[in-house]
Order: sequence, then C-alpha cells, then structure tokens
Amino acid sequence: MADYQPPVKDMLFTITQLAGLDQVNRLHGFEDATPDLVEAVLDEAAQLANEVVAPINEIGDRQGARVEDGKVIVPDEFKAVYQQITADGWAGVSQPTDIGGQGLPYIVGLAVEEMWQAASLAWSLCALLTQGAARAIHEHGNDEIKALVLEKMISGDWTGTMNLTEPQAGSDLAAIRTVAVADGDGYRITGQKIFITWGDHEMADNVIHLVLARLPDAPPGVRGLTLFAVPKKLIQADGSVGQSNNVSVVSVEHKLGIHASPTCVMAYENAFGYPVGDINSGLKCMFTMMNHARLSVGLEGVAISERAYQQARAYARERIQGEKRGHEGGVAIIEHPDVRRMLMHMKANIEAMRGLAYVTGGHLDRAEYEPDEAVRASELARLELLVPVVKGWCTEMSQLLTSLALQVHGGMGYIEETGVAQYFRDARITTIYEGTTGIQAGDLIGRKILRDQGQALKLLIGDMQKTVVDLKRHGEQLATIRGALQTAVGELVTAAQWLSDNFAADPDTPGAVSVNFLMLMGTVAGGWQMARAALAAVEQLAAGAEDKSFFTAKIVTANYFAEQVLPLASAYRAGVEAGSGSIMGLSDDQF
Amino acid sequence: MADYQPPVKDMLFTITQLAGLDQVNRLHGFEDATPDLVEAVLDEAAQLANEVVAPINEIGDRQGARVEDGKVIVPDEFKAVYQQITADGWAGVSQPTDIGGQGLPYIVGLAVEEMWQAASLAWSLCALLTQGAARAIHEHGNDEIKALVLEKMISGDWTGTMNLTEPQAGSDLAAIRTVAVADGDGYRITGQKIFITWGDHEMADNVIHLVLARLPDAPPGVRGLTLFAVPKKLIQADGSVGQSNNVSVVSVEHKLGIHASPTCVMAYENAFGYPVGDINSGLKCMFTMMNHARLSVGLEGVAISERAYQQARAYARERIQGEKRGHEGGVAIIEHPDVRRMLMHMKANIEAMRGLAYVTGGHLDRAEYEPDEAVRASELARLELLVPVVKGWCTEMSQLLTSLALQVHGGMGYIEETGVAQYFRDARITTIYEGTTGIQAGDLIGRKILRDQGQALKLLIGDMQKTVVDLKRHGEQLATIRGALQTAVGELVTAAQWLSDNFAADPDTPGAVSVNFLMLMGTVAGGWQMARAALAAVEQLAAGAEDKSFFTAKIVTANYFAEQVLPLASAYRAGVEAGSGSIMGLSDDQF
Repeated sequence: MADYQPPVKDMLFTITQLAGLDQVNRLHGFEDATPDLVEAVLDEAAQLANEVVAPINEIGDRQGARVEDGKVIVPDEFKAVYQQITADGWAGVSQPTDIGGQGLPYIVGLAVEEMWQAASLAWSLCALLTQGAARAIHEHGNDEIKALVLEKMISGDWTGTMNLTEPQAGSDLAAIRTVAVADGDGYRITGQKIFITWGDHEMADNVIHLVLARLPDAPPGVRGLTLFAVPKKLIQADGSVGQSNNVSVVSVEHKLGIHASPTCVMAYENAFGYPVGDINSGLKCMFTMMNHARLSVGLEGVAISERAYQQARAYARERIQGEKRGHEGGVAIIEHPDVRRMLMHMKANIEAMRGLAYVTGGHLDRAEYEPDEAVRASELARLELLVPVVKGWCTEMSQLLTSLALQVHGGMGYIEETGVAQYFRDARITTIYEGTTGIQAGDLIGRKILRDQGQALKLLIGDMQKTVVDLKRHGEQLATIRGALQTAVGELVTAAQWLSDNFAADPDTPGAVSVNFLMLMGTVAGGWQMARAALAAVEQLAAGAEDKSFFTAKIVTANYFAEQVLPLASAYRAGVEAGSGSIMGLSDDQF
Repeated sequence: MADYQPPVKDMLFTITQLAGLDQVNRLHGFEDATPDLVEAVLDEAAQLANEVVAPINEIGDRQGARVEDGKVIVPDEFKAVYQQITADGWAGVSQPTDIGGQGLPYIVGLAVEEMWQAASLAWSLCALLTQGAARAIHEHGNDEIKALVLEKMISGDWTGTMNLTEPQAGSDLAAIRTVAVADGDGYRITGQKIFITWGDHEMADNVIHLVLARLPDAPPGVRGLTLFAVPKKLIQADGSVGQSNNVSVVSVEHKLGIHASPTCVMAYENAFGYPVGDINSGLKCMFTMMNHARLSVGLEGVAISERAYQQARAYARERIQGEKRGHEGGVAIIEHPDVRRMLMHMKANIEAMRGLAYVTGGHLDRAEYEPDEAVRASELARLELLVPVVKGWCTEMSQLLTSLALQVHGGMGYIEETGVAQYFRDARITTIYEGTTGIQAGDLIGRKILRDQGQALKLLIGDMQKTVVDLKRHGEQLATIRGALQTAVGELVTAAQWLSDNFAADPDTPGAVSVNFLMLMGTVAGGWQMARAALAAVEQLAAGAEDKSFFTAKIVTANYFAEQVLPLASAYRAGVEAGSGSIMGLSDDQF
C-alpha cells in the first residue's frame, strides 16, 4: 500500500495564492499566521498524518466497528491515535482561542483537516462531528452548557454527535418524532435516531449528543424542532462525568465503507438534555453548522481523491507492463498515454477541487471576522452560494476519481488487499451524508440563487469574467485556458439566464435542472480556480521563483483542465436548458 | 431487496425492432426463431432468472468462495442452481445444434445471457467462460480434443476457463512465461496463472483449462504463444474422468465484488495438455473468442445496471419522504424531480446500451452465418468496430448507473443489507477484465479504425446519417432527437477527421485520445439506437399497436437521451481534438 504524503506544497500554494492568506491575515486574531508559520504547521501535521494516522486506515477497514455488551468497539489503534492527536492540541486548530482552540485561520485548518481525512476518513469523522457540535454550542448555547462542555469538546477530551435522522425522517426533517418534555432545569428526551456517526465509542470519557426533538406543544414541521445537548453520561456540578443518562446504542450498521466509523442506531429513553438555542429554533441552530459541515464533507471529496491518486501514481511508476518506442525493454505503465491521461485527470481535478474548497474556506474566515458588517454580509453570501457547490461537485468528482485510481491498477485494483478499493468504497458515502447531491442542488437553486434573484451568482460570474480579462494580458501563453474559461463562463451565464426566465414555468423545473446546474457551477468554478492558479504560477515564474518544476506543472495541469474538463460545461448547460419535459414525461408505472 | 424481473418486453423490442431478428431468421438454421418462439424462450428464461437464479445472488456475496483442503468451496445454492439450469439445456442456448447447442440466434442468446448476468453476475461467469472455451475448441481444436470435451462443455457438464494472465503478464501477453514441452501425444505444462475466473470448484466433474504457454524453442513475444487444453482431471480413452492432472488451486482472491466467483491462482506442474490450434498461434486462437467474450462483458454492464435500476425504482416507489404540491401528505420519492431524473438517466442509458449490445450481436450472427462471403466480411468489420465500443462504453456507463441506483437510496444505499451496494461493487470489475477500457480504446483506434483507414467507421457513420434522414420525415414529433443526433454525429465526423489528420503527429496521440474517442462513439451509437427505437415506436403507434404505454415511454426516453446524454458528444470531441499535449506535458516526477 502506498504511503500517504500530504501535498503540502500544493496546499500552501492554494492557501497563499488562491484562498488569500494575506487578506485573512489582516483580520483580528490572525496577524501571526504568516506563510512561514503556516508552512511549519502544515509540515508538522503532514508528518503526523503520514506516520501516525495513515497506518491505521487499513486496520480500521478490516476490523470495523461492532457492539459488544452495549459498548461500541473500534480498533485499539484508533483510540491511541485519537488520544495522541488531541493531546497535541490538533482537534481545535481553527477554533477561537477564547474557547480553547489554536485560533488559526479556517483556511489553514482546512488543509490540516484534509490531511486527517486523507489519512483515515473513518477516523477523521469523529473530530469533524465533535468540532461541529462544539461550534453549535458555542454559537447558540447558554452560559451553563458552554461552561460544562465547550472546553472539553474543543480539546477533544469529549466528543460530539449530530442526531437528526430517524427512520421516517431522512432528507425531510419535518417528520422528526423524537420528543422532549420539560423536567426541572432541563428536558427529558425520548426517541430513536439512526445513522449517527461515531454515536458511541470508548475513545473519550463522554459523548455530547446534539439531538433534534419536538416539545409536546410544538408546531408541526420544522418550525417545531428544538436542539438539545444530551450527554452520554450525566455531567456533575463540578464538571466531572457521572452516571449513565439512559442513552444507549442499539446497533452499528454494516456499511460499504468507512467501516471503522461506527454508524449507530441510538435510543434515548427519558434521557436528560440541555436546550441549545431557543425553543422551536432547532433547525436554525443546525443551519449555523451547515456551512462548516458541508464544506468539510466537500473537502473529504478532495482528500479521498488525493489519497487514491497517490496510490495510483505509485503503482503506475512501479508496475512494468508493455513496451514503448524509445525505451529499452518493459516500461512502467506511467509511460503509456492512457494511464497518464488518468493520472492527469485525477491531478487536475483534485487541484481544482482543492482550490475551490480552500477559496470557499477563505470566505468563511472573512464572513466571520471581517470588521465591516457589509463586507461580512457579502462574504457570507458568496460562502453560502459556494458551499453546496463544493459539497456537491467535489464529492461527485471523488466518485470518478477514486474509480480512476482503481482503474489504473487493472486487475490488482479489484483485490481488496491492494488497498485502493477501500478509497473507492469510503468515497461513496460523501455524496450522501450531510445532504445528498440532490439536496445540495436544491439548496443552491432555491435558497442561494432564486431567493436573491441571482445577485450573489451575478457577482461570482463577474469575478470569473475578471479572471478572463487577466488571462488576456498573458496572450498566447494562457490562450487555451482563456478560451476555455471564457466559453465555460458563457455557458454559466446562459444557464443562469435560462433559469431566471424559466424557473416558474412549472413547479418541477427547479428540481429537474438543479443537479445539472450544480455540476455546471462546479466545473466552471473549478476551471476558474485553475486559471487563477495558472496566472499565479506565471507570476511566480516571472518573479524568478525557485521551484520552477512546481509552477510549470501547474500551468500544464491548468491546460489539461481547460482542454479535458471545461468542455463539460456545454453538456451541463444543455441539460439545464432541456428543462423538466422528458425528466417528468413518464407516469410512475412507465418506469 | 427488490425482485429481479427481466425486462422481456424491452428485450423483445430490441431483438425484433433494432437487432433485426427478421434478417437473422433468413440465415441457415434460424428459420424457426419466430418472434413468438423467441418470446416463449425469453419468458421461460425470465421465470428461471427471477425464481431460481436471482435469489442466490446475495447469498453468494455474503458467503463468497474459499479454498478448503485444496478445493474451492462456493455456496451450495450455486451448485444446485448451476446443475438445474444446465440440465434444462440453457448453457448452450446459442451454440450450434451439431455440437449439442440449442441453435438459437446469438441475439436471442444475448437476452438470455443478460438475464443470468443480472440475476447473479458471479454465478453467470462460470457459463460465460465455459462457452467461450468451448467455442475456441470448436473453432481451433482437432478431432480428438473436440470428441473428448466439446459436448460435455456445451451441456455444462464440464466447465472451462481461460488462463492468460501471469503476475508479470497482464495486458501485455508477450511477457507470458508458462512453458510447455512435448511429451508423447501431448505436452506437459508448467507455470503459474493468476486471475483465473472459476479456476476451480466442485460444481461439475471436470474443468477444461485453456492455457497460453510457450514452447522451449518458441519465438519471443506473442508470436511464441500456443494454446493448450489442460483438464483438471485426466480424461480416459472412454471419455470418463480419471485421476488428477497436477493442476492445483493455490489461492482464491479476496475481491471488492463478485465474491462467489472464485478468482484463482492456478499452478500447473507438468500437467498434461492437448494443443488447441497450431503451435505458436495461441494468440490467434484467443482472438476468435474475443468478440464473443468482450460482447458478453459489455452486456454485463447492461445487466448489472438493469438490476440496480430495478432496485432503485422499487425503493423510489415505496419510500415516503417530503411533500409535493398537489399531493396529500408525504409522497413517494419517485415524485421528486431529481429522483425521477436519476431514474430516467438509468432507464435511458440502459435501453441505449441494450440496443447497441444486441445490434452488435446481430452483426455477430450475420458475420457467422450470412451465405455471401462479402456480406460476411462487411458484417465482421462492423462487428469488430463495435465490439470494443460495447465493451468499453457499456461497462463505463455501468459504473455511473449502479452508483446512481445507490444514490437514489440515500443513506440506506450505503448499508450492505440493502443490497444495492453489491451491484455497485460487482459492476466495478467490468471495466477491467477481458481488457480494460484503455485496452478496448487502443483496439478501437489502432486495429479497428486506423488499420483500414477508417473505412468501417465511415460506413457506420453513413448508417447513422441515414437515421437522421429518416427522423426528418417525422417532422416536429422527433425534432429534438433529430437535432441532437445530427449534432452528435457531426462531432463524431469531426473527431474522426481529426484523428485521420493527426494520429501520426506524435506516437502518443492515438493512445492519448483513444478513451475520449471510444466514449464519443459509445454515446453517439447509443443515441443512434435510441433514435431508431423512437422511429420504431412511432411506426408501431401509427400501426395501432396495443401497448401504447410502452411505445410512448420509448419516445420520451429517447428524448431524454437526446437532451441529457448526447450533448456529451461535444465534450468528448473537444477532448480528442486537444490531442496529447497536456496529457503528456509533465515529466514523471511532476506528478
């Protein structure tokens, strides 16, 4: 199995040249995050990801998680590594310092997170859920709950979960039935939740479950949901862990991938819970986490693709098969053009995806910390427009890219011991959890485009067109990229206009065209980031940068994206313009 | 888990309206294959596939195959079902009657084969390999070997395998090292072979291994390979099974999917073998089987996608989630436009793939049985042009389609017990074995297009353009399909011209553009079949056909393909025209 070597060079390039580290550094609290410091942080994390986390990934896949005597058992190595990484303070790397975090910009935290995800997706999910839950409590909890749990969660001493789904309530949270009744200072929660990631385990002393439930007199639907923090074990007045809280794990799912991430069915029977946020505002509290959580899952698409790519690259360099003119004897398969095409397809898409994810992370930093309210608002609008695109497009692409990595291995790819099949299986969850691609696309079209009459989209397109203008200044050198981006942005403009003109044609139109629109936006936005990357590389080379090989490779890779990926924009635009006619043209029984 | 109901209606439509049953019926031996008889055969096979074969599929996935005391153990149900189906004469359904087959046209056999593959891909492979090996022996073997094994293989009493791959010889057969030395009437074979599908098992009394090996004085490379039939147990003069022949199974692979199909490492130690075909002509003998075998694997892409589609459709009809204007209360998710888009995407692509596969099967029938030699030759040229397209495109599409079927299930799709994940895992082998997509694409560009200066391709394009003309006669009703097909065929013409002008530009060009070219051809050829299907449906409706619902659905489905799939042709064409520049633009260490 190939080593995982975090691509620190490309991460640094993306943070500094695309995601705007200098702009983020102007913001309160980030003055010290110089490129040198960021590099040092990434180097340290990379070493841990490579030496400590990556080796447990295959063990987790093989051993999985199971319930024994009411306890969830994961591999011992998972616990040891979890405790090592959290003890070193890595859990809250981009959480604010006043609640125990390291206070680094989110764009730096994203790169670190990508490393954990690539090293072991199953393992990384525990931290993702914990930090998300902590963020919700930080934002919406009262002083009591914050004092009780926040520091312990940020440090990773305790972990956290999100309890939304019930058997009848998946994408449709309005159908949630779990009940909460007032009892003294708190509430008593009763109900069953499913698909609870890291719902139980023995890696930490306590688990704080964030549970969406409904009060007896609550209005129906999503307006009647309240968020509660329900600890696995009761928290005593001095903050220590007390007795059990009637929270139990019913079973652990047998899944296609991420075997060592226990996906639990949880039962709450009169369990004590603290309200988080206002009564009947549970959905709003969950929405605060959504930008972070969806961006993180989009990043998983980048991470798992990178890991799979590295294994395919290693195999392609060492596997000797066939001959080639100009080479003596057998050649490594990386010399064969179609193998190289597959590697380029992975490399180019991964770099574009990383660019888009980190750039979106930069908007998150600025949406939180820009001093000017109007700037914060416009950053938030851009963030919210891009989040479903990052989540939807990067995870959809990860299906293709991990599959290509497997393909490079030929028959060996299909053998489980080779290891690449695990990435293919693990990746498959990313287009589903934290909102399926269809849910992301609906969010994009409905809440992020139609609701503001396309204003945020118009500003984004304007920025893309500025990049086209910038490319023109470089003449022939970047002509291919310029031409392809200009055409692709034109397709996006056309599709947006079509949407604006036709969304009301029939009630099925927005839903019918939404995934094509999302994939169109992802493709064009990815191409935009690669174009910006090529511009930065040209400037670095002109300025006499040392690492010529990296920057020339970036330009070639951006050319590949322009030639082989951006032409898809036309197909997606055509798919949008076809509307809902043939999609809705059959009756149910004609399928 | 959803029932598998073979789509007999669409299969019959495809056989009679697209693949030309009437033309095939003119040929010697097929006079009796009337549409009524074919329907009766398909109905009977469908019942067996549904009731007998499909239920063992999940058992096979769960139990898999293992080696115990030197024997390969598969689930008991696999043996019982194998013996039932072969006893009923289904093994050799489209083999000639003079060697014990049922003598039905290959296009009918294809439909039956699709049913077995969809019912249980792992199980169906034993028959695929056996019939392929029998065909090679029928074509190239001498009277002795034919008398010894042919009837028993056609009936399925004995099974067969193909032994090509060795650890150092995968796509590159020139690297084969297994040796054969003359010994009395036969040869002694020594070597190790890997990835041998159904290499050993206890379902039948004997296994006939076709083994590529090299004589001591053979020329190097592929010109020094000879094919041998090596029985698992020696065959006595009276045809009965004797003692063991020094053929042993070393191990069985642990794979991503098709768990119950034992993929064996086989060891031959001085095993007795019969030569099949001329010395040093082994590769030629394997090539005869290739059209059948590759077409069969292409068909697997259709079959596994159909099975996955049926499960997604059943889930979409019964899963209640969310609401919809005009519906009381919760609705089945099939009412949501994006779910319906996914179902349409599966349905449209599967029908196009089935059309292309069966049409190619019709060319196989005619290439074998047309009385006129010139007609046989032109049918063979068309067949050989389409085979890599069917193999490459249908199996690549099956990756997307089984993944979409999983996606329709949301979180449930990721749970193994739901069953759809098995189809996703099983499908993943199809782009790899029997020649990867890259190998198919190389075959298409090199042997099938450049070698005859594009003559066969030109004739194919001419037939597509005739369909565009036919569509014009139907005016507005088929205008969308006509426009999309005309554009897509234009893209194919452009790409073919580009290839003709540029293939010699540098030695990497053909390989670099080959997969884009293959996917372009598959997309356009699939759209061509859907256009032909729409034309046939319009005619049937005009003639007052009873099943209006089926034919109107066919027209809607063809429209969907025209609107949502054919636009990809432009992207593939652009990918071809970009040539090898950016694909080969990095040095090995820049990856």
